[in-house]
Amino acid sequence: MTAPPHSARPGGPGRPLPDTQQGMRRRNLSRVLHTVRAEGPLSRAAVASRIGLTRAAVSTLVDELIRFRLLEELGPERPGRVGRPGSALAVSATGPAGIGAEVGVDHLAVCAVDLRGQVRSRAVRHGGNRARSAEPVLEQLTRLVRQVVDETEAEGLWPAGLAVAVPGLVARDGRTVVRAPNLDWHDTDLGELLAVDMPLTVDNEANFGALAELWLGERTPPDFVHVSAEIGIGAAVVVDGQLLRGTRGFAGELGHVPVHPDGPACRCGGRGCLEQYAGEEAVLRASGLAPGEDRVGLLAEKAEQGDENVRRALTDAGTALGIALTGAVNLLDPEGVVLGGALAELAPWLLPSLRDELARRTAGPACPVSVSALGPQGPLLGAAHSVVRTVLDDPAAIAKYATRTGTG
Amino acid sequence: MTAPPHSARPGGPGRPLPDTQQGMRRRNLSRVLHTVRAEGPLSRAAVASRIGLTRAAVSTLVDELIRFRLLEELGPERPGRVGRPGSALAVSATGPAGIGAEVGVDHLAVCAVDLRGQVRSRAVRHGGNRARSAEPVLEQLTRLVRQVVDETEAEGLWPAGLAVAVPGLVARDGRTVVRAPNLDWHDTDLGELLAVDMPLTVDNEANFGALAELWLGERTPPDFVHVSAEIGIGAAVVVDGQLLRGTRGFAGELGHVPVHPDGPACRCGGRGCLEQYAGEEAVLRASGLAPGEDRVGLLAEKAEQGDENVRRALTDAGTALGIALTGAVNLLDPEGVVLGGALAELAPWLLPSLRDELARRTAGPACPVSVSALGPQGPLLGAAHSVVRTVLDDPAAIAKYATRTGTG
Repeated sequence: MTAPPHSARPGGPGRPLPDTQQGMRRRNLSRVLHTVRAEGPLSRAAVASRIGLTRAAVSTLVDELIRFRLLEELGPERPGRVGRPGSALAVSATGPAGIGAEVGVDHLAVCAVDLRGQVRSRAVRHGGNRARSAEPVLEQLTRLVRQVVDETEAEGLWPAGLAVAVPGLVARDGRTVVRAPNLDWHDTDLGELLAVDMPLTVDNEANFGALAELWLGERTPPDFVHVSAEIGIGAAVVVDGQLLRGTRGFAGELGHVPVHPDGPACRCGGRGCLEQYAGEEAVLRASGLAPGEDRVGLLAEKAEQGDENVRRALTDAGTALGIALTGAVNLLDPEGVVLGGALAELAPWLLPSLRDELARRTAGPACPVSVSALGPQGPLLGAAHSVVRTVLDDPAAIAKYATRTGTG
Repeated sequence: MTAPPHSARPGGPGRPLPDTQQGMRRRNLSRVLHTVRAEGPLSRAAVASRIGLTRAAVSTLVDELIRFRLLEELGPERPGRVGRPGSALAVSATGPAGIGAEVGVDHLAVCAVDLRGQVRSRAVRHGGNRARSAEPVLEQLTRLVRQVVDETEAEGLWPAGLAVAVPGLVARDGRTVVRAPNLDWHDTDLGELLAVDMPLTVDNEANFGALAELWLGERTPPDFVHVSAEIGIGAAVVVDGQLLRGTRGFAGELGHVPVHPDGPACRCGGRGCLEQYAGEEAVLRASGLAPGEDRVGLLAEKAEQGDENVRRALTDAGTALGIALTGAVNLLDPEGVVLGGALAELAPWLLPSLRDELARRTAGPACPVSVSALGPQGPLLGAAHSVVRTVLDDPAAIAKYATRTGTG
């Protein structure tokens, strides 16, 4: 098995293409593909006018993208328009697919998304991963990936890469899980343990959740803080449409922002961190509930039924979130805050106190807080779409890979 | 007087140059100029090998930069080397100058910096600006700017733009001071009130201080948080060598991160903000000192003399800074924290408790905290250098302006 190339980290600026004729061609290929994807079906003339290149230049680029199987011609446009009818272009439904995977504390999931953004295949396996070592979990994940890849290939698509969302901190190499406390993984190299022959990227689930919100959410601004939860509190900061990663790749640790600096000790070494007030375990404890399998579902159900203890615990968690987010908003000045993941499910009971707290601590209008429509699906979709994005951002590179491996 | 163009905000990615032959030429002009500035004197052949273009292409670019008076030839290189001797190139000492200005609470300052980074002229006026309205202050600043421009022109330089550092929040238009509480300015348009005929940029003093640290500091990493103070606590976040500005331009408000959420009320509308523990007024109050003219100097002097009250107040301020910075470090994962401005002067008494607090709240190695060597000079130097940077980043644009106004 040949070692596949590792793709650039998702949601970042990518490797800058060289400033040469060749680099310019590659950037223009990307521009054509992005334009057709966002606004297609479009004729060559329409693409040319949208991106400000000549029709001849666009035709050459389009021919190349058709050869790469990234664009397809839908046949002549309907008559009745002025001039010679052109053939409408659309992104291919049988080209590359992005494979996304998620290692959750209680489940594994894999899906394939095509260039048009459609989910074409999906596989889920329920069951806890907490007490297991990384090897059997990743063996199982490899089998799920193969299943989804087989189904995808049966539909005429080819896998352009795999992106894996994990509940932990990932090194900037994009493959090593430095620590995932709720899985008890430390310095786990997924590149070694996943037996898949395609470009691999591993990232924190909060990062992929935020990217899903950025790419798929309605009216998501380019500058926002995305807060999610799976046992711990995760957050991701998006600035100008790009993830802020930090020096080691550890940015977005909202869960360890001090809320009451003399509060209870936290596993991070600090005291009174947000996680001690709004983390799943803290909320369960404050509610007087025992930790079980579907913890978020249980909290939502009890709150729905009017359980006073649960409602009070969620209100207090919202207040703590509001204090920590006041700090984040003052530091980052985002356009909005989005609650995703498990927090989206609990939003009805968290939001009132969270918004109160933010408003109380802000002189002007408070930073708007909204709830993700993707909820727990965010990280998996973000992972798959991040692979699709790498194709859209540099179609020439991925076409080369497809040719090399003989699957294109 | 013709309205001069407004330059792009400093420390940002700038306006992306169009992806055309013309844009490529402009980017390559910048590349040549940056290379000669950083590593010169250099021959054309040495520039060509460093930036990976042919010698012929570099020669054309160099000729253009000489015509713009941005580069100059120093004459033939000393003999004894292999091949035909080339003429060494250096950035011009008589080309454009960046004019920087600072509106402090207790002073006004202006300086001019040439392409080589040398300060060529400087003017300062001491005296409080707190009780005065914006008009007379900016009239006085205009006079200081003219004085510095005259001196600069007498040396054969021409002013390429003016950048003004203010102790307040600046709108993203780069000219309107939204609020500067310690000057009592609100929605003050410096573009209207400053009678200068050159491109103008206004920015927060903390931002310019951070940029000075980035450009002039020794071993400053590309990802850091810069904390400074002039009455309020200011901070700036630099990510990948660029300022993080926020949606409204208000990012970096570390002074209003909650430290003790039930603490004293703050003018921002919040409670227990960092400024209530580490701001100048809070420290003076805790020290039992009356606010006077040179407040920071007074604190440093008393601490030096061993005044227990002052030392205790500064230790407590360091602890509060450590709590707020724990939050910032968790959110941003910077490579380091730099104390600048007035905090640099007080660092000996702030640092021990600040570092303790950060270490206490961090499981792994704590984020390193260093002290700026620029201290209170940072904002003024950062402002002047930001103008020089706009020239280096797009020499063609500024050459056009120079030609248009007839000063080039």
